[in-house]
Amino acid sequence: MRTVLVIGVGAGDPDHVTVQAVKALQRVDVFFVLDKGEVKQELVDVREEILRRHLGDRPVRLVRGRDPERDRKAGAYAEAVHDWRRRRADVCADMIERELGPDQTGAFLVWGDPSLYDSTLAILEDVLARPGFAFEIEVIPGITSVSALAARHRVGVNRVGRPVQITTGRRLAEHWPDGVDDVVVMLDAHTTFADLDPDVEIFWGAYLGMPDEILIHGTVAEAAPRIAEARAKARAEKGWIMDTYLLRRPADS
Amino acid sequence: MRTVLVIGVGAGDPDHVTVQAVKALQRVDVFFVLDKGEVKQELVDVREEILRRHLGDRPVRLVRGRDPERDRKAGAYAEAVHDWRRRRADVCADMIERELGPDQTGAFLVWGDPSLYDSTLAILEDVLARPGFAFEIEVIPGITSVSALAARHRVGVNRVGRPVQITTGRRLAEHWPDGVDDVVVMLDAHTTFADLDPDVEIFWGAYLGMPDEILIHGTVAEAAPRIAEARAKARAEKGWIMDTYLLRRPADS
Repeated sequence: MRTVLVIGVGAGDPDHVTVQAVKALQRVDVFFVLDKGEVKQELVDVREEILRRHLGDRPVRLVRGRDPERDRKAGAYAEAVHDWRRRRADVCADMIERELGPDQTGAFLVWGDPSLYDSTLAILEDVLARPGFAFEIEVIPGITSVSALAARHRVGVNRVGRPVQITTGRRLAEHWPDGVDDVVVMLDAHTTFADLDPDVEIFWGAYLGMPDEILIHGTVAEAAPRIAEARAKARAEKGWIMDTYLLRRPADS
Repeated sequence: MRTVLVIGVGAGDPDHVTVQAVKALQRVDVFFVLDKGEVKQELVDVREEILRRHLGDRPVRLVRGRDPERDRKAGAYAEAVHDWRRRRADVCADMIERELGPDQTGAFLVWGDPSLYDSTLAILEDVLARPGFAFEIEVIPGITSVSALAARHRVGVNRVGRPVQITTGRRLAEHWPDGVDDVVVMLDAHTTFADLDPDVEIFWGAYLGMPDEILIHGTVAEAAPRIAEARAKARAEKGWIMDTYLLRRPADS
C-alpha cells in the first residue's frame, strides 16, 4: 500500500518540528512540493534546513508540481477556493500517479498544522476519491502559528472557562464574531484590526519564529498605527508578509 | 537573572515533543511539578519517558509542590478557578523562592500547549507581580490536543474561509455557540454532545497519542451512544479520562 504523509512542520522556526515529524521525514521516499515560484525564499530555506538537518546525507527525491493560480478576482470566495483546490488536486493526482511507487511513502510538508487553514488534506481526499487511486493518508500534527504567537507574547489565547474563536481577516471585516471576547485572526491580507474598538487589546506577530520576527502588543488605539507602519515597511522590504494576531476585548463588553 | 520555562510537551505522545522543547529541557536546572497525587499514572509515565529520553544520564532535580484542591462545589466557576489559581501561585512562589538559585533555569512542563486552557502562565504572572520576585518567563509552544485530535481523524478543524470556535463542555451545555458551525470542545466532564442535533457530525478522541487512544466518528444520532459507552467503560477501567471533540454541523443550518 502506498502512503502519503501530511507533516506539520511548525510556524517558521525549524526547531518547531516534533520528534514524531522527524521520524516521519525519515520514512519518506518522495517529497511533493507545490511550487508557487515564490518570493518567500526564507520559507524555502526553512524547509530545506529541516530536511538537511534531519535527513543528513540520505538522498531525497523532491518532486515539484506547478501550483495553479487562484482567481483572486472571482466574486465568491469559497467557490474560488474550491475551484483552486480542484485544480491543485489535479496536479497532486498527477504527481502521485507518476512518482509514488507501490509500497512507497510520499509526503507533503505543511506550515503550522495540517488541521488549521490548510488545504492539503482536502486536496488528498479529492485525489483519493478519483478512480484508480488508493493510498493511506497519515497526518503528523504541527505547532500552529496560533500557539507560536501566544508563546512569543507569553499569553493564553483563552481566558478562564471562556471560548476563543479562530477566524479570518475577511470575516472580521464583516463584524466582530458573536459570543466571544477573544479572537485569533489568520489570513488577514489587510489591517482589519485598525477599524476595531480602540480599547481592544491586540497581540500581533509577523514572520513568527523566523529571524525577522516582529511582535507588537497594545491597545488598538495605541498599537494599530505602529503595527500598520511596521507591517507596510516589512512587506515592502521582503516582498511578502505572514502575520497573525490575537484580539482581546474586556469580557463585559 | 533567573528564568522559568513553560514547556508545552504535546498531547500525550512522547514524540509530540519539539526540537525546541528538547533543547529547552536540556537547559533546565530544576523541574517544578504540582503534584495532584494523581491516578493518571500514564501521564506521569509519559513525562518521565520524555525526560529520560532527552536528558539521558544527566541528573535532574525535581521539586514537587502539593497542588491545592479546587472547590468543585463553589457556585461561580470563574471565581472558584481564580481562587484555586491564587493558591497554586502561593505554592509555586514558595518553590521558586526556595529552590531556584540565582541565574538558574526552572521549568514547568505543560500538557498540550501553554496557551490553551492551561493556567501555568497566569500563575507565573501572579507570582511575578509579588514583591521580591524577578525572573524571565519563556514559553515553548506544544502540540495542542486540538491538533492531535484532528490529525488522528485526518480532518481539518475549520472549513474553507470559515471560523472555528474552541470552547468548554460547560459553555456548550448552555447553547451552541453563535455564528459558527465548527466547534472544538475541551474540558467536558460529561457527555454534553449527546444532547445536540442528531445531524451534527462528531470527531471524538480520548487518551490522544497514548496506547489506549480511542477514536470515534459519526453523526450524533449514531455515534453519541457509542461514545458514551466507550467513555464510561474506559473511565471505569482506568480511573480517569481525558477527551476532546470536534463538532461540525451543516454550514447552512
